[in-house]
Amino acid sequence: MTSAGLFVSLEGIDGSGKSTQARQLADTLRGLGHEVLLTREPGGSPGAEEIRALVLQGDPDRWSAETELLLFTAARRDHLERTIRPALAAGKIVICDRFADSTRMYQGLSRGDLRGAVDTLHALMIGQEPDLTLLIDMDPDAALARAKARATHEERFEDFGKDLQVQMRAGFLALAQEFPERIRVIDGTRDEAEVAADVLAAVAPALPQHARAAV
Amino acid sequence: MTSAGLFVSLEGIDGSGKSTQARQLADTLRGLGHEVLLTREPGGSPGAEEIRALVLQGDPDRWSAETELLLFTAARRDHLERTIRPALAAGKIVICDRFADSTRMYQGLSRGDLRGAVDTLHALMIGQEPDLTLLIDMDPDAALARAKARATHEERFEDFGKDLQVQMRAGFLALAQEFPERIRVIDGTRDEAEVAADVLAAVAPALPQHARAAV
Repeated sequence: MTSAGLFVSLEGIDGSGKSTQARQLADTLRGLGHEVLLTREPGGSPGAEEIRALVLQGDPDRWSAETELLLFTAARRDHLERTIRPALAAGKIVICDRFADSTRMYQGLSRGDLRGAVDTLHALMIGQEPDLTLLIDMDPDAALARAKARATHEERFEDFGKDLQVQMRAGFLALAQEFPERIRVIDGTRDEAEVAADVLAAVAPALPQHARAAV
Repeated sequence: MTSAGLFVSLEGIDGSGKSTQARQLADTLRGLGHEVLLTREPGGSPGAEEIRALVLQGDPDRWSAETELLLFTAARRDHLERTIRPALAAGKIVICDRFADSTRMYQGLSRGDLRGAVDTLHALMIGQEPDLTLLIDMDPDAALARAKARATHEERFEDFGKDLQVQMRAGFLALAQEFPERIRVIDGTRDEAEVAADVLAAVAPALPQHARAAV
């Protein structure tokens, strides 16, 4: 494949099914003959995984919101340099489970005054957006039930209650309005196969030309 | 002590004697009845020490200059929040072996185009300068001999040759010209006790009022 790659991120609240959809999309595109890199944040490169462990393990209060933001930005920079950009340069389709929108959401929500710092840091040290972001939108009650069923102690991202899930859903939908060219909202409350079909339909127009007809 | 604290940093090339002078200054001020916190960067708080280990151990090329800058800024933010600011709020004299000037120097020197990012990051996420910075200026030949005598494999800061030491000395002196109100240049080539006397004389005018007469 000599065409430039494609960078797709999936976002959504915990339990929305975005990780399942990311894997499903990767499998489907591979079946269509595409070279696909499936990755996730925080983490996604050896260095970024070490930073992820440093942030997510231990006492939830061990880092301030500002320090955590800097650590996540460091992890994203490493992930971008070592994993995402080389794959894009090789013409691959990169599917990333969470990217910068999660930081805009989580850091912005836990400390509203940090959203400006998030955006400045992103512009200064990251400077890359996905070509396409799929927001898997989900009713928080259903999402919370799913998230609780698979929660682990080391994953602090799961430690959110109902009220926060409701705020996060609203926050993600507001982001979709802020970036309408990039973010597509997909109803995640339906059957997994139906959601997957919508995900594929959203990605199809952006696929490398030679394979598009096969979708 | 109810007065506001005092924040003093020491900077200089490897082998300049700044760490020795920092310890000496702390001992002298304690002897004069001051409450002193002696700390150092990178590190200086439990979280920042963990970040320091992540950055300085392993392959020198494991992090890009940009990722390293973000990690050092995260460490500094933690050090500032957990160690420096509480001590200043308690009225202590904080003596810090390296602070932001080292980042301006090292990151700016290894990647000249990063100096703007260093300054923007500092303004955004740190926003604090020492009240007084003592630059222990030293002939690179003499400093290099000292640095080599105590180099360890885990300290990548030591892995610099003569040419780079010469550039660094020039860079630190340029910083002193950039911040003449804050940075005092002290000739570090002399006898340790003579240097210590100059260091104390530079700090004395900034000491809390009630103890100044004792110097």
